[in-house]
Amino acid sequence: MPSLDLSAGAVQLTRAICDIPSVSGDETTLADAIEEAVSAFAHLEVIRHGNTIVARTDLGRAQRVAIAGHIDTVPINDNVPTKDVEIDGAPYLWGRGTVDMKGGTAVQLTLAAELTEPSIDITWMWYDNEEVEASKNGLAILAAARPDLFQADFAILGEPSNGEVEGGCNGTMRALVRTTGVRAHAARAWIGENAIHAAAPILTRLAEYRAKEVPVDGLLYRESMSAVRIAGGVAGNVIPDACEVEVNYRFAPSKTAADAEEHIRNLFDGFDVEITDSAEGARPGLDAPIARDFVLAVGAEPRPKYGWTDVARFSALGIPAVNYGPGDPHLAHHDEERVPLAQIEDVERGLRTWLTR
Amino acid sequence: MPSLDLSAGAVQLTRAICDIPSVSGDETTLADAIEEAVSAFAHLEVIRHGNTIVARTDLGRAQRVAIAGHIDTVPINDNVPTKDVEIDGAPYLWGRGTVDMKGGTAVQLTLAAELTEPSIDITWMWYDNEEVEASKNGLAILAAARPDLFQADFAILGEPSNGEVEGGCNGTMRALVRTTGVRAHAARAWIGENAIHAAAPILTRLAEYRAKEVPVDGLLYRESMSAVRIAGGVAGNVIPDACEVEVNYRFAPSKTAADAEEHIRNLFDGFDVEITDSAEGARPGLDAPIARDFVLAVGAEPRPKYGWTDVARFSALGIPAVNYGPGDPHLAHHDEERVPLAQIEDVERGLRTWLTR
Repeated sequence: MPSLDLSAGAVQLTRAICDIPSVSGDETTLADAIEEAVSAFAHLEVIRHGNTIVARTDLGRAQRVAIAGHIDTVPINDNVPTKDVEIDGAPYLWGRGTVDMKGGTAVQLTLAAELTEPSIDITWMWYDNEEVEASKNGLAILAAARPDLFQADFAILGEPSNGEVEGGCNGTMRALVRTTGVRAHAARAWIGENAIHAAAPILTRLAEYRAKEVPVDGLLYRESMSAVRIAGGVAGNVIPDACEVEVNYRFAPSKTAADAEEHIRNLFDGFDVEITDSAEGARPGLDAPIARDFVLAVGAEPRPKYGWTDVARFSALGIPAVNYGPGDPHLAHHDEERVPLAQIEDVERGLRTWLTR
Repeated sequence: MPSLDLSAGAVQLTRAICDIPSVSGDETTLADAIEEAVSAFAHLEVIRHGNTIVARTDLGRAQRVAIAGHIDTVPINDNVPTKDVEIDGAPYLWGRGTVDMKGGTAVQLTLAAELTEPSIDITWMWYDNEEVEASKNGLAILAAARPDLFQADFAILGEPSNGEVEGGCNGTMRALVRTTGVRAHAARAWIGENAIHAAAPILTRLAEYRAKEVPVDGLLYRESMSAVRIAGGVAGNVIPDACEVEVNYRFAPSKTAADAEEHIRNLFDGFDVEITDSAEGARPGLDAPIARDFVLAVGAEPRPKYGWTDVARFSALGIPAVNYGPGDPHLAHHDEERVPLAQIEDVERGLRTWLTR
C-alpha cells in the first residue's frame, strides 16, 4: 500500500494522491492510504464507512464545521501520472484529478494533520463514488447510516471553484418530452402520422426559451433549459411513431422540485412529459454569521455555483454550505485537466487562516 | 430438394412456394426447385445466374414482354407454414410471402409452364435479394451481366397491387440534414450552443411542408417529405454539439434525381445537407400501345404506384413497365400478411387473357 506524507505540503500531496488511480468504484487503495495516514494523529478520531473516511476533532469548541472532499475521479485518459507544466510562466500540475478534486482533498488532508488545535471543531470527510449515480455516493450513504456525524453549523466542500467561494447551487431536473404518431411506409407517408414532425413545437419552445436570472440570498443564479438528447426513427423507409426529447432544467435554489416540475409541464403543455430525475439546489446560506465570517477570513468574493454539487446534501440537512477549492471547474473531466499550484496554496492559506483565527 | 408441380394451379403453387422458406440470402433451395420445374418444358430456354432463373420462349413473335418476380421474402415471424383463413366469408392464404410476392410469382410459374404458344414472346425472370440492399438485387445483377436478356417491349412486375395495374413508381431520395453547436456542461448552458435547439426550423419546415400531387402520363403521383430518424445528444449533463435529421423525399417520376436534390437543398436552405441515397422513379409508360393493350386485356384500372419497385430498372432501360400482382401492398412485410385467393385467380386469368389473345 502506498503511504502518504501529510506534512509534505498540499501541492506535493496533490501530486501523490493523483498518482494513486481512484476512478469511481476503485477507491480502496487510496481510501486505505488516507485511513492509515490520518490514524497517526492523536487529535483525530477516525471512522471508516466503506471507502469513506471521517476524521474528527473533539475539542469542545462552540461550533463545528464539516469539510468534505471526494476521492474518486472520472476515468483516466492517458493523463496519469501527473506532470509539471508551465502555462504563461505559471507552474501547473497536469493530470486526472488535479482539478476534480484531489487538489482540494490534498489541502484538507494537509490541514487535518497540521491543525491540532483549530478554533472551531472540524469533521473532515473524504468520500467515494461522487462521479457516478447518486445511489453510490459515499457522502449520501454516510448521511443515511451515520446522521450523528452530520451535526455541524457550516459545511465546506472542496469542489473546484477557482479558489473563490461559490455559494449554494442550482437544482437540476430531467424530463422526457414525448410525441407519438402512427407508423406507415414512407412511400405512403399520408397514411401515417410523423412523430418527429410533431416534435417541432418542442424544439421551437426550447429555442425561444429565455432563461431567468434569480437573486437568492444576495447571489444571482442563472437558470437554463436545454435539450440534452433527441431520438426518433424506426427505419429509413418508415414514418416514425415515436420521438423523445430529453430536457435538463437547471433551476435557482429558491425553487422546489415541485416548482420546477410545474414550470416544465407548463412549458411543454400539450405534450407527454415524464420527470425522470431531480435534485433540488442549495441556497447559498451566506447570510449565516459563521458563513460571513468564513468569507471574510479567506478574502474571497462569493459567487453563485451553477452546477449541482454535494453542498445540496448539507443544505438539505439545514447546514449552510459552500464550495471552496482550487481549480477551474471548466477543466473538470477535461483531458487537459490541470491546476495552478498557486490556487492550491491560496486555498490552503485561506482555510488555515479561518480555522486558526 | 422439394419438387414443384406447376400444373397444380396458382393458389396451390403459392402455398407450396411460401412453405419453402427463402428469406433474402437464403433462396438456393427455392431457386433449385424452380430451375428443376421449368427445365422440364421444351418451349422454355432456361438460364440460371446465381439464384436468378430466366425462362424464355423464342417463337419469333413481333414483340416480347419481360415478366418478373422476386423469390425472396423479409424474415419469417412465426408466419410460416401458411394457413388457410377466412375473412368476411372470403378464403385467404395467410403467411410470410403470400403478398410480397410469392402469389405473383406462382401465377407466373403456372403460366410459364402452361402457355406453350403465347401470342407474344415472354422472358420470365425469378430473382433473389429484392428485400435487401440494392447491390445484392438479383434483377440488377442480371441486367449488368446479361443485358441481352433485357431486350423487351414491355415489362410486368408481379409486385402486389391488389390485382390492379399500378404504373411506374415515385423516386426516393434520402438526405441527412445537420446542425452543429458547441458542447458545454448543462449547468452552464449559455457557454455552449445547443445543436438540438438549432434543429427546430428543420422540424418546423417538415411539419409545414405541403406535398404536391404531380400528374405524369395521365396518373397522379402523390409526393411526400418525411423525417425518418432524428438523433442528437452526448450525455444527460452536456449541451449537444451535433444533431442530425434523416429525411426521405418521395418524388414524382417526372423529376430527375437532380431536381429532387435541388428541392431538398432549397427546403433546408441554411443547413448542412448531405444526400445519402437516391433512386429515380419510373414513368408509368401507359401511353405505349402495348401497355394500353395490356391494360385493356386484363380489365384493370391503372393507378399510380407510390413505393419504389424494380419497375424503375426496366424504365431506366427504356422499357415501359407496370406492377400487376395479387395482394394488398399495405400487408407486405406485415406479420398478418395474407392474400385473398380470388386475387391470385384474377391475376392468373388477366395475364392469361392478354398473353393468349
